[in-house]
Amino acid sequence: MALEIYNTLTRKKELFTPLEPGYVGIYVCGPTVYSDVHLGNCRTFISFDVIYRYLKYLGYKVRYVRNITDAGHLEGDRDEGDDKFSKMARREKLEPMEIVQRYTLGFREVMQLLNTLPPTIEPTATGHISEQIEMTQQIIANGYAYEKEGTIYFDVEKYDKEKTYGILTNRKLEDLLEGTRELGGQEEKKGRLDFALWIKAKPEHLMQWPSPWGMGFPGWHIECSAMSNKYLGKRFDLHGGGMDLAATHHTNEIAQNEACFNESPAQIWMHTNMLTVNGTRMSKSLGNGFLPHELFTGNHPLLEQGYSPMTTKFFMLQTQYRSTLDFSNEALQASEKGLKRLWDAYTVLQKLTYTADTIDSELEEKVLKLVNGFEECMNDDFNTAKVLANMFELVPVINSIKDGLIKVSAITETTFTLLQEKMKVFLEDVFGLQQATEEGSGKLANVMELLIDIRKEAKAKKDFATSDKIRNQLTAMGIVVKDEKDGSVSWSA
Amino acid sequence: MALEIYNTLTRKKELFTPLEPGYVGIYVCGPTVYSDVHLGNCRTFISFDVIYRYLKYLGYKVRYVRNITDAGHLEGDRDEGDDKFSKMARREKLEPMEIVQRYTLGFREVMQLLNTLPPTIEPTATGHISEQIEMTQQIIANGYAYEKEGTIYFDVEKYDKEKTYGILTNRKLEDLLEGTRELGGQEEKKGRLDFALWIKAKPEHLMQWPSPWGMGFPGWHIECSAMSNKYLGKRFDLHGGGMDLAATHHTNEIAQNEACFNESPAQIWMHTNMLTVNGTRMSKSLGNGFLPHELFTGNHPLLEQGYSPMTTKFFMLQTQYRSTLDFSNEALQASEKGLKRLWDAYTVLQKLTYTADTIDSELEEKVLKLVNGFEECMNDDFNTAKVLANMFELVPVINSIKDGLIKVSAITETTFTLLQEKMKVFLEDVFGLQQATEEGSGKLANVMELLIDIRKEAKAKKDFATSDKIRNQLTAMGIVVKDEKDGSVSWSA
Repeated sequence: MALEIYNTLTRKKELFTPLEPGYVGIYVCGPTVYSDVHLGNCRTFISFDVIYRYLKYLGYKVRYVRNITDAGHLEGDRDEGDDKFSKMARREKLEPMEIVQRYTLGFREVMQLLNTLPPTIEPTATGHISEQIEMTQQIIANGYAYEKEGTIYFDVEKYDKEKTYGILTNRKLEDLLEGTRELGGQEEKKGRLDFALWIKAKPEHLMQWPSPWGMGFPGWHIECSAMSNKYLGKRFDLHGGGMDLAATHHTNEIAQNEACFNESPAQIWMHTNMLTVNGTRMSKSLGNGFLPHELFTGNHPLLEQGYSPMTTKFFMLQTQYRSTLDFSNEALQASEKGLKRLWDAYTVLQKLTYTADTIDSELEEKVLKLVNGFEECMNDDFNTAKVLANMFELVPVINSIKDGLIKVSAITETTFTLLQEKMKVFLEDVFGLQQATEEGSGKLANVMELLIDIRKEAKAKKDFATSDKIRNQLTAMGIVVKDEKDGSVSWSA
Repeated sequence: MALEIYNTLTRKKELFTPLEPGYVGIYVCGPTVYSDVHLGNCRTFISFDVIYRYLKYLGYKVRYVRNITDAGHLEGDRDEGDDKFSKMARREKLEPMEIVQRYTLGFREVMQLLNTLPPTIEPTATGHISEQIEMTQQIIANGYAYEKEGTIYFDVEKYDKEKTYGILTNRKLEDLLEGTRELGGQEEKKGRLDFALWIKAKPEHLMQWPSPWGMGFPGWHIECSAMSNKYLGKRFDLHGGGMDLAATHHTNEIAQNEACFNESPAQIWMHTNMLTVNGTRMSKSLGNGFLPHELFTGNHPLLEQGYSPMTTKFFMLQTQYRSTLDFSNEALQASEKGLKRLWDAYTVLQKLTYTADTIDSELEEKVLKLVNGFEECMNDDFNTAKVLANMFELVPVINSIKDGLIKVSAITETTFTLLQEKMKVFLEDVFGLQQATEEGSGKLANVMELLIDIRKEAKAKKDFATSDKIRNQLTAMGIVVKDEKDGSVSWSA
């Protein structure tokens, strides 16, 4: 079964055929670094990290471009108005690039905690001013943009006469026009859907650059068109982002590229769905939006406890990226337990050694089907949720082997090896999950082994005071020691 | 005693007076990200990290700008020729920005291992093309640069008629001219010391930008002038870099700023000295240059063992930044032992509690002098070596208190508290040194405490088999348990 991906543009799953065999180019809209990255962004970046990792697992050479918006992201109902960075800078009396540095570092830290890989190219908006100006000039030259007092607007109605402006979200221009309010102070625009490609700067703007139209700064949408074109070309394989970007930002990206190059940028448009909290859409204004660090530490009125970065990631992967994802303490706690259960079984599995005996062909078939299902599920529009469901069906099998209820020899050696390998590859390489505890770290593991050995000796000597003391004190420090049926002792921190 | 800094420009130590009271602006030439960061760079960045931390300790609000050279760094004896990034890209069949991303990530990792703080602004050359073009235009307008076939050269001889080109390194133009070879293929330059501000790109150049002189890319030197001006202004407090940059790069920076703004950029120019290996200058071509990771792992023919990032950093801080620093296994091993000895004493010190008794006024005076010396030494051109020497004089005092040979009460409580505080502040906050071992990490420390307790009980029960087993096995895993004179047991991993 080959890889199928849901394409927002065509509203169906499509067989994925890269433009150049063996290579994949993917562009994902990255963070705006004027505030802390929010959880919805984290979901998007985790989803595309897994997609990037899976494409590499399939053998593709992937160029993964994720930008950093460090300028030109505007406030206001549509695009006009002040540059967010300059506003913040005046308030905090900082240089805009100091704010950018602070939040870029914060963003990277969260991405590292969530164990996502850095993209292969991470371009910044301020690093591509001339490319944005060039593209704007070409769009003007092609007749799809006009200047009004130093600001350049994209002419949506003119564009829609020849192309379909609302193609990505399947909406008609008339409906879009009807749904847009007429705003005061924007008389200079010809059409009310027109958006700025380049914005004239006021003298007090801290971020501004020279252009053929005077000092100004780029509109937000042109940034992604300019950078995807620079690093992936006019036409590339995949374009991703949060679902909230489809109706305006991505719609405008397509319009810009079509108006400039007469070509639509991406083959397939992918969108990650929204987060909800206890069934309500997560949003800052509703007070139910927690930051990654608030979630990790539990420092938020809605949170009963902290949930580790790995629990958070695992929780997110338990839902396919196109479904909404609802945060609740119950669901997160279930994920915490689930991850522990899965990881324990995985740890046991990696330590098992195979010995040949009678094959149980029913079990053999079941295990094989579940393991082969990992790839099948991922090929079905990256359904991480189903892969994890398959893994959870394998957990009781692994535990039964550990407990001696099933012999490891009940499956063939090939299947056993495949199970060990694929569990490792999908959990660690494709999903990027990690041991969440210190259990695996060298010195602690060694010291624990010694302590468990001393406890065993104490028991053998009937020195229960010592053996109980060891067990109780370990429990008090959050280390659970468990006597297994096979006589071995396991522990987890 | 106020802060004095050696100024390369005036060839003497100067009292530091910031241009704006309470604020310090510092610019440091950062890494060129087309290959792994080398150890000489690490020394420079560690030195300026400590300087940055110390200035903050003194209460200044510091804007620390360190650039990333991701374009325009040229090969060739002076400045002409190919762009290094494009060459590398063709060889590795990568997009230049992919190489930039790879080595930027590698650089950040090394800086993190060495526990240096990120600068407050980290601007890139490619992010400031228009600023570099603007400055070049102004230098042309002021008459100090000329165009030859799309390339803009700085006119050094004309500049030297009005200003002093070799001012930074105190050299005369005649001597510089004599020391420069006449190179073939550069007939278009008027003077042989002239350097490029902007370079015309060949069609095959992967990195090029539009300019008033056609497609091209910036010269290397203009980058730092444009970025220091943008983030710190025409005149700022401190400019730093490796000593190898003084004669050309920094000399040209001053010339560019003078030619553009009629002002010299920095009050004080600071330069870190070179590294040698067993007495010979460290260089790739001599095969005696090891990369940070080679030093950390010991994976180099000249290295007998690996030296941890903290040992490396400590070793570097044991020499003042303006002296050459010689790498040898003996010296590194001595630093490794020294750091351990110092850190052990520091750990003991932090656990001591004060009790009043008879004051030994000689000891009191000695301790006070040594502790107050921390700041005095740092105020003397950031002499980290002398601070550490003072600390090493304090080690036997601390150890004598621990061993019961001196009572903690022999010094006043004020001095004792000062000693505890300043050791912490200088070791951790100013030098950015960290516990190199796992000793301090939560779970391991707890488990070790339990294990040491069990061993103590075993000894009390005369169960020497168990107590010896614990001790021997811990030794085997590299954990040394030590019975102290006061009856307590310490351990180190």
